Amino acid sequence: MASSASPELSKPKILNGPGDYVLEDVPHLSDYIPDLHTYPNPLQDNPAYSVVKQYFVHVDDSVPQKVVVHKDGPRGIHFRRAGARQKVYFQPDEVHACIVTCGGLCPGLNTVVREIVCGLHHMYGVKKVLGIDGGYRGFYAKNTVYLNPKAVNDIHKRGGTILGTSRGGHDTSKIVDSIQDRGINQVYIIGGDGTQRGAALIFEEIRRRGLKVSVAGIPKTIDNDIPVIDKSFGFDTAVEEAQRAINAAHVEAESFDNCIGLVKVMGRYSGFIAMHATLASRDVDCCLIPESPFYLEGPGGLFEYIEKRLKEDGHMVVVIAEGAGQELLSESIQSMTDASGNKLLQDVGLWLSQRIKDYFSKERKMLINLKYIDPTYMIRAVPSNASDNVYCTLLAQSAVHGAMAGYTGFTSGLVNGRHTYIPFNRIIEKQNKVVITDRMWARLLSSTNQPSFLSAKDVEPSTPS
Amino acid sequence: MASSASPELSKPKILNGPGDYVLEDVPHLSDYIPDLHTYPNPLQDNPAYSVVKQYFVHVDDSVPQKVVVHKDGPRGIHFRRAGARQKVYFQPDEVHACIVTCGGLCPGLNTVVREIVCGLHHMYGVKKVLGIDGGYRGFYAKNTVYLNPKAVNDIHKRGGTILGTSRGGHDTSKIVDSIQDRGINQVYIIGGDGTQRGAALIFEEIRRRGLKVSVAGIPKTIDNDIPVIDKSFGFDTAVEEAQRAINAAHVEAESFDNCIGLVKVMGRYSGFIAMHATLASRDVDCCLIPESPFYLEGPGGLFEYIEKRLKEDGHMVVVIAEGAGQELLSESIQSMTDASGNKLLQDVGLWLSQRIKDYFSKERKMLINLKYIDPTYMIRAVPSNASDNVYCTLLAQSAVHGAMAGYTGFTSGLVNGRHTYIPFNRIIEKQNKVVITDRMWARLLSSTNQPSFLSAKDVEPSTPS
Amino acid sequence: MASSASPELSKPKILNGPGDYVLEDVPHLSDYIPDLHTYPNPLQDNPAYSVVKQYFVHVDDSVPQKVVVHKDGPRGIHFRRAGARQKVYFQPDEVHACIVTCGGLCPGLNTVVREIVCGLHHMYGVKKVLGIDGGYRGFYAKNTVYLNPKAVNDIHKRGGTILGTSRGGHDTSKIVDSIQDRGINQVYIIGGDGTQRGAALIFEEIRRRGLKVSVAGIPKTIDNDIPVIDKSFGFDTAVEEAQRAINAAHVEAESFDNCIGLVKVMGRYSGFIAMHATLASRDVDCCLIPESPFYLEGPGGLFEYIEKRLKEDGHMVVVIAEGAGQELLSESIQSMTDASGNKLLQDVGLWLSQRIKDYFSKERKMLINLKYIDPTYMIRAVPSNASDNVYCTLLAQSAVHGAMAGYTGFTSGLVNGRHTYIPFNRIIEKQNKVVITDRMWARLLSSTNQPSFLSAKDVEPSTPS
Amino acid sequence: MASSASPELSKPKILNGPGDYVLEDVPHLSDYIPDLHTYPNPLQDNPAYSVVKQYFVHVDDSVPQKVVVHKDGPRGIHFRRAGARQKVYFQPDEVHACIVTCGGLCPGLNTVVREIVCGLHHMYGVKKVLGIDGGYRGFYAKNTVYLNPKAVNDIHKRGGTILGTSRGGHDTSKIVDSIQDRGINQVYIIGGDGTQRGAALIFEEIRRRGLKVSVAGIPKTIDNDIPVIDKSFGFDTAVEEAQRAINAAHVEAESFDNCIGLVKVMGRYSGFIAMHATLASRDVDCCLIPESPFYLEGPGGLFEYIEKRLKEDGHMVVVIAEGAGQELLSESIQSMTDASGNKLLQDVGLWLSQRIKDYFSKERKMLINLKYIDPTYMIRAVPSNASDNVYCTLLAQSAVHGAMAGYTGFTSGLVNGRHTYIPFNRIIEKQNKVVITDRMWARLLSSTNQPSFLSAKDVEPSTPS
Repeated sequence: MASSASPELSKPKILNGPGDYVLEDVPHLSDYIPDLHTYPNPLQDNPAYSVVKQYFVHVDDSVPQKVVVHKDGPRGIHFRRAGARQKVYFQPDEVHACIVTCGGLCPGLNTVVREIVCGLHHMYGVKKVLGIDGGYRGFYAKNTVYLNPKAVNDIHKRGGTILGTSRGGHDTSKIVDSIQDRGINQVYIIGGDGTQRGAALIFEEIRRRGLKVSVAGIPKTIDNDIPVIDKSFGFDTAVEEAQRAINAAHVEAESFDNCIGLVKVMGRYSGFIAMHATLASRDVDCCLIPESPFYLEGPGGLFEYIEKRLKEDGHMVVVIAEGAGQELLSESIQSMTDASGNKLLQDVGLWLSQRIKDYFSKERKMLINLKYIDPTYMIRAVPSNASDNVYCTLLAQSAVHGAMAGYTGFTSGLVNGRHTYIPFNRIIEKQNKVVITDRMWARLLSSTNQPSFLSAKDVEPSTPS
Repeated sequence: MASSASPELSKPKILNGPGDYVLEDVPHLSDYIPDLHTYPNPLQDNPAYSVVKQYFVHVDDSVPQKVVVHKDGPRGIHFRRAGARQKVYFQPDEVHACIVTCGGLCPGLNTVVREIVCGLHHMYGVKKVLGIDGGYRGFYAKNTVYLNPKAVNDIHKRGGTILGTSRGGHDTSKIVDSIQDRGINQVYIIGGDGTQRGAALIFEEIRRRGLKVSVAGIPKTIDNDIPVIDKSFGFDTAVEEAQRAINAAHVEAESFDNCIGLVKVMGRYSGFIAMHATLASRDVDCCLIPESPFYLEGPGGLFEYIEKRLKEDGHMVVVIAEGAGQELLSESIQSMTDASGNKLLQDVGLWLSQRIKDYFSKERKMLINLKYIDPTYMIRAVPSNASDNVYCTLLAQSAVHGAMAGYTGFTSGLVNGRHTYIPFNRIIEKQNKVVITDRMWARLLSSTNQPSFLSAKDVEPSTPS
Repeated sequence: MASSASPELSKPKILNGPGDYVLEDVPHLSDYIPDLHTYPNPLQDNPAYSVVKQYFVHVDDSVPQKVVVHKDGPRGIHFRRAGARQKVYFQPDEVHACIVTCGGLCPGLNTVVREIVCGLHHMYGVKKVLGIDGGYRGFYAKNTVYLNPKAVNDIHKRGGTILGTSRGGHDTSKIVDSIQDRGINQVYIIGGDGTQRGAALIFEEIRRRGLKVSVAGIPKTIDNDIPVIDKSFGFDTAVEEAQRAINAAHVEAESFDNCIGLVKVMGRYSGFIAMHATLASRDVDCCLIPESPFYLEGPGGLFEYIEKRLKEDGHMVVVIAEGAGQELLSESIQSMTDASGNKLLQDVGLWLSQRIKDYFSKERKMLINLKYIDPTYMIRAVPSNASDNVYCTLLAQSAVHGAMAGYTGFTSGLVNGRHTYIPFNRIIEKQNKVVITDRMWARLLSSTNQPSFLSAKDVEPSTPS
Repeated sequence: MASSASPELSKPKILNGPGDYVLEDVPHLSDYIPDLHTYPNPLQDNPAYSVVKQYFVHVDDSVPQKVVVHKDGPRGIHFRRAGARQKVYFQPDEVHACIVTCGGLCPGLNTVVREIVCGLHHMYGVKKVLGIDGGYRGFYAKNTVYLNPKAVNDIHKRGGTILGTSRGGHDTSKIVDSIQDRGINQVYIIGGDGTQRGAALIFEEIRRRGLKVSVAGIPKTIDNDIPVIDKSFGFDTAVEEAQRAINAAHVEAESFDNCIGLVKVMGRYSGFIAMHATLASRDVDCCLIPESPFYLEGPGGLFEYIEKRLKEDGHMVVVIAEGAGQELLSESIQSMTDASGNKLLQDVGLWLSQRIKDYFSKERKMLINLKYIDPTYMIRAVPSNASDNVYCTLLAQSAVHGAMAGYTGFTSGLVNGRHTYIPFNRIIEKQNKVVITDRMWARLLSSTNQPSFLSAKDVEPSTPS
C-alpha cells in the first residue's frame, strides 16, 4: 500500500428521501464521462432468463443498512441493490476485463475468480478476461494469462488462488498506466481492506484521467473485519475448519492430567473466527480476542482462571485470536534480547504457551501439560464449502452486473441478506470488530464462563511480570 | 396431524405506524391472563452480561420482512425482534419446560435441544426441563426424561435427535391434557410446517383453557420450505453433504461412456436443496425440482437434452428433488399392476432411472450407463456444521428469551439476518418455494444450460408414453 | 470377455527345492524368444538409488504363500519377489507402453495409472506411454492419448479413472492386432478377475505370435475377491467410506421407533467389504454376505431376529452385501410379473427392504420404520486414502520393474506384505471369498450376535414365502 | 521409566527345528508355577464359534519373521501365532483384569481399550476389568474405574484415551505391589517402547514373586518405531491426517511467489510418518528424517536445493520429522543465550523456519515466503480410521486370547500379516527405523528428487554457520 492513510476520495453521492431515507450511492462512469452510449442487456435474449419476470433490478431498489427499526424511527442509510440492469454501458466485444487477487489466502478465492470469468462469458458474451499474476505488483511486473470458462472449470474445488497473490506492491500510477496501456476497461479487485483502499486509489486516478474503466471490488477477509457487509466469503469455511483444531485440543486436554489445549486462530484486529468457532464448538473454556483486553496475573486474571479450571476439571481449552493481547506481548518482548527467539515470541500463541508454562512451573510449582495448535495455514488453504461457494458466485455475478452497467468505484457486498453496491469509502473507513458490549460476546461469555477481564482493569491496570 | 386444514387461529395482533409501517405481533400470556406478575430478568445479575450495554431488546425493536425498498415506497410488514427482555413472566423455580422434536431428521436437532436446555439453565437458572420421547405422541404415550446441561453436553456432535422423533401422532386435547396434568408451563416444539400447525392448535387450546403456558416453535425443515424465514437450520449442512453425492455421480459419469449420473435429493415440495447443491457444485447438467414441471419426450424434453449432452460430452449429471415430476410419475404408475414394484417406482429417482434406461435401450437403441445415487438418509443424519451450530444456538436462545418474557404462540425465526418472533399463522399459511420466475432459478438455468421445459409446455402438454 | 471359461493357458513354470519348497514362477520373454539382448538397469545411475545397497532383487528371492507354519511342516508354494533387476530387456527408447483400465470404478485407479507413467518415466527414462480409452474395447475402437508425468501429476487426488473404463469388450485377436500394429511392447492391464482372464488370453496370443511384448496385470477389485493377494487396492478406502453409510443408518435407526437401518454395500460374490465395515463400525446388528446363506422366516430366521432386536433395543442396523441372498431373491422374483418393478427388485437391498416391510405390516401388524441406504457409487468414486495411495504406487512400480526385466504373463500382487509376481493362472482360477468357518467370520458373529443361519438350514431348508 | 537401560530379562525361550527353524517363544505362567489347573475354552460353547472349524490355534502354529526366502536358504526365526487356545488357565469368575495406556496419544487407543473389555466380556465371560487412570502412575496414585461393554460402547469413535495417559511414572515394585494388593491377575499394557520396557520389568518382578498374573503388552507408537511388527496401530490414520497439512502447505506455496511450505510431522527417532506421507502425497519436494542426516549450507545442501526449486517452480514443500537434524539444531542452539527463545528453537520446525528465513534474507537478499505448519496434535487426536479400527480389534483380541491361555511377558503384534505373540526382549532391544539404504527410501528420493545429502557428507562434514 502506498499509504495507510485513507486516500482522498471524491465526494460521496448521497440521495435523500422521505422519513430520513438516505441512499449512499456508488459512482458511475457517466458521472465524469458525458454522452456514453448504452446497449440493451444481452441477458434479455438469454433463454435461461427469458422466463424470468422482473429479472432486472429496478432503478430505485435499495437496501437499508439497519434492519432493526422502530415504528417511529428514521429510515437511515441505504445502499443500491446489486444485479443486472436493463441497459449496459459496454458491448461484449468491447470489454477487456482483468482480475487480481491480493493479500492472504481465503477459502473461496478461486470460486470468485471462476464466477467472474464465467459470469462475463456466459451472461454477457465477454471473451477477454485477463488474470493478473501475484497481486497488485502483477499489473506492472508480471506476465498475465487469459482466462476462459474451460480453464477455470474445476478451480473452485481447490484451495488457494490460481492467480497467485501477494501483499503490498500497490503503486497507483504504475497500475493505472498498465491498465491504460493494455486497454483494460473492467478491473475486478479481490482483497481485504488494504486492497480495497488501493482499489479506491486506482478508481480515483482512473476518474482523474477520465478513462472509461469500471473498478469493482470484491471484499476478501478471512477475519471478517470488513465493515457494513453481513460477513465475508470464506468465513463459514474457516470457522468450520477451526473446529478441527479445537476438537483436537479438547481430545489432548482430556487425555492428560492438568492439560491445557491452546489453539491460535486468525484474527489480527477482529476476533470473529475465534468467537464463532468457540460458539460452534462448545468445548472452549476461554476465548481471547483483540477487542477484549485481558491480563495474566493477579485476581481475575488468566492464570487464576486456568488454575481454577485445572483444579475443577483437570483440563481446559483456550482459543486465542492472533491479534489478542498485543500490548501484553510487546511489553514482554521488550525485555528480551535474542533476535530469533524474539521473532518467534511475536507469535502470540507461542508467547502465551511460554508464559503459561513458566508461570505454572516457576511460580506455582505445578506440573502442567500444554498442547499448542496453530492451524492457521490449514484453515486458509481449504476449498470453500457449499454455502461459501454459492455466496462467492453471487458476489462475483453482482460485481459483473455492476461493472457492465457502468457502475464503478464500488464494492460488491451482502447487506442484510441482499447483494448491494457499496461505495469504497464505507468499506475502508474502519474495521469491523466484535462489539464486546453486544449480545454475541455476552453469549460467548455465558457459554465459556470465562472472566470478563474487565472489572479488574477498570480498577487497576494489568501487571504482567 | 389431526387435520391438514389450517386451524382456526385467534385473530392476528396487528400494529400500524407511519409510512405504512405494520407490525405483525405475536401473542402474549397477558393477552388472556390478567394481572400477571413480572420479575426482573435474572440475566441482569449474570457476570457475562454485566458488561454488555443495551443487552435487552428495546420494546419497539422490529425487523422488516422486505428489505429491498424504494425511496418513496411503503415500509410494510415487520416482526418483533427476538431477544432477552428486562422483565420476565416466570421465576426460575416456577418454570417446568418440555421439548419435543417431530418429523424427519435434520442436522442440528440435537444442537437446538442442547441449547434450549443450556439456555434455560445457564441464563435463567431453570432446572426442570423435560424431554418428550418420540414426537407428539410422546406427550401421552411415552416415558419422558429430565434433561440437564451435563446430559446434553456432547449431543451437538451427533446426528439425529436424542429425544427420538416420529411423524403425526398429534392429538390436541390429549397433548394439552398431558401438559396440564404435568404442570408444564413452557412448551418448545421443534418441527416442520405440519408440526408448527400442531403447535398452533396446542397454543389455541391452551389459550382457550386460560393456562399460563408459553408455546414456542422452532422451525425445522431440511427442505427449507418454511416461509418468511431466511433459511431453516441444517440447510447449509444438507447442501454441503449433498455435494458428496453429486461429486460421486460426476466421477462415475466421467469414467464411463454415455454415462448419466443421477442424484436424488430431498425436497418434497420445494427444490431448494437441489438448486443450492447444483449452484454450489457446478458439475450438474440438469436440475429438476417440484416447482418447475418438466416432460420427458419430444422436442425440448428431458430425453432430447440427455441425448444431446451424451453426444457432446459423453456424460452428464442430473439432480432431481424427490418431489419433482410427481404428475408424470403418477400417470406412469397407474399403468402398472404389480404392488411391490409399484411402490418402488413411487420413488421418483428409481422411476426416472427406469424411464431413461427404457427409452435409450428400446427407443434409441443406444447403450447408456446410468448410476443412481440416493443420499437422502446420509444427508439427514450428519451432525450440523459450524455455521448451523451457531444458528441453532441463537434460534434456541431466542425461543427461551421469548417464552421467559411471556410471549407465546410464536415461532423463533431469522428474518433478514435478525432473530425475530413470528406468529404461527405466518409460518403455516403456505410453503416456501423456489420462485422459478426469479433470479436464483435463472442463475441456475444459466449455470446448467438445461432447457426451461416451459416454452413447449405452453404450446402443448407433455406427452409421456 | 470372450468366454467365462478359463482360457487354455500355457503350462505353469514350477521349480522345486528342499523341504517341499515350490516356486510358482511367472513367464519370461526369454521363454519363447531366444537370444534376447539385455542391458544394465538404468537405475544404477540414478542418484536416488546410488546410496541404496542391495537395491536390486536377488534372483532367488521368493515369498511363501503360507506363513503360518509348523516346525516340521512343508515349505509349500512360493512366488517370485517383485522389484528391480540388474538386467533389463528393454532400452528406454525402445519401450512403447500402454495402460488400460477395465471394469467398475475403484479408489486408486488414477494413482496406479499415475505411477506406471511416472515409474516408467523417472526410473527408466521411458517416454512413450499410451493411455487406452475406455477399457478393452479402446484397443480397437477408440482414440488413445499419450501420457506423461505432467499430465498425470494431480490425478491421484481425483476418484474414477482418467482413462475411462468399461465392462467386457474383450476380443483377443483384435486387441493383439492393435498391439502389434502400433508397435506396443509393454501392456499394463488394470482390472478384476474377468479382466485378468482377458490379460491371460492376450499374453497367450502374444506368446503364440512370438512377440517381444510384456503383459503385466494389476489386480483391481473393490470387493477384494481376487485370490492369493493380501488385499486389493482401494479396499481400505472403500471400507472407510462404507462407514459413513453405516453411521447414517445407525443415527436414523436410533432416532425413530422400531427403526431398521439397512445398508447395501458392494460384494457380488465376496462379503469382505460388508464384513470389514461391520467389524470397523461396531454399530451393526446383522451382516449378510454371499458366502453365508440366510433365510427370512421361521425360527432362527432374519425376521425373528429383527423382531427380537426391535423389541429389545427399539432399533437395529443391517448391512447386506449386494450378492447376498441371491437364491432367495430369484425365488421371490419368479413369482412376479411386472418388468420394471422386477428389475428393481433384482437389487437385493430394495428387495429385502420390501420383504421386511411387507412381513411386519402384513404378518406381524407391527409398525416399523425402514431406512435404506445404497452408498455404492459414493464409495467407488472417492479418491484413494493415503495408505491405498502408497499401496498403488508400489503395485505400479512392481509391475514396471517386472515388465522392464522381461517378465510377462504376471500379475503384480502383495503376498504376506511383500510385493510379488504371480502367474495369471493363480489369479483367475477361483475367487477369494470370506471363509465362514474361519476366525474372522466368527469374530464378526461374536460382535453382532446375529444368528448363524446355519443350524436351522442343516435341519431344514429355508422356506421363504 | 526407572532406567533406560534394557532390564535384566529372564532367558529367552528358544526352540529349534529342521532347516534352521527357530521359534522365539513367549513365557507362560506354567514356566514358573507348577500344576496350574486348565479349563476348556468357553468359546467352544459360543454359538458364533460353533460353526467355525479349526477355530483354535494349533499348538505348533508359528509365523516366520523373514518372508523373503531363497530356495536353499535357512528358515530362520519364527514367532508363536496368536489366537484362542483349546485350554485356558483362568476361569471367567477368577479373572481380574486391568488396562493401562501410557505415553502420547495415538489414533486407536480407545478402540484397543474397548476391544479388550468387550473381548474379555463377550468371548470369555469376564466381568472384572479395571481401567487404570493416567498411565503407570495410576497404579499407585489414582482412582480406578471398572469398565464394561456398555461404558465403552462408543469410545472408538473418539480420539484420545478415556483412561487418560502420562509419560514416565514407572515404579516397578510399587506397581506390582498394587497389582498384588488388588488381586489383579491379567495386566494389559498399551504403550511404546519405553512402556513395553516397563512391562517387561513388571513381568520379571511378577515372575520373581511367583504370581499367577499374565502381563500382555500392546505396542503403541504413532511413529511406527517398534521393531519386528509390520506396523503399529494408528499409523495409517496418522499418515492420512498428515496429508491435510501437506495439502495445505502445497496450496499456500503455490499461491505465493518464492514460497516454501514447511510441515513438521511426528517421528522422534524414525521418519516413517514423514516418509509415508511424502509417498502418499506426491506434492513434497524434500523429506527430512532422523535417519538421513542433512546439512544446510554449501554445495549439495538444503539451502542450495531450496533456491534451485524456487527458481525453477517458484514454490516448494518440505516435510520434516520432529527428530530430524538434531545435531545441527544442538549446534545452533548452543550459540544462543535467551531461555525462552532457546526452548522454542528446540522445535526443529521453528528452528528450520528461522534458519531458512535468515539465510535467504541475509545471505541471499532474496524475498521468500515461508508457511510453517505443525499438525502434530491434530494428527494424534483424531479417531482411528476403519482399517486401524479392525487392526486394533484383532490386536486386543489376540492379547486377550494369549492372557487367557496363560501366556505372559509377551507383546501382541502383527508379523507378515499374521497376529503373533512376541517376547518383550525382541520389542525393546532396538527401535524400528527407516533404512535409508533400502528400497523404500530410494522410492522416496526418486519421487522428490531431493539431494541425498550423503555424498558431500562422505567427503566433508556439514558446516552449519
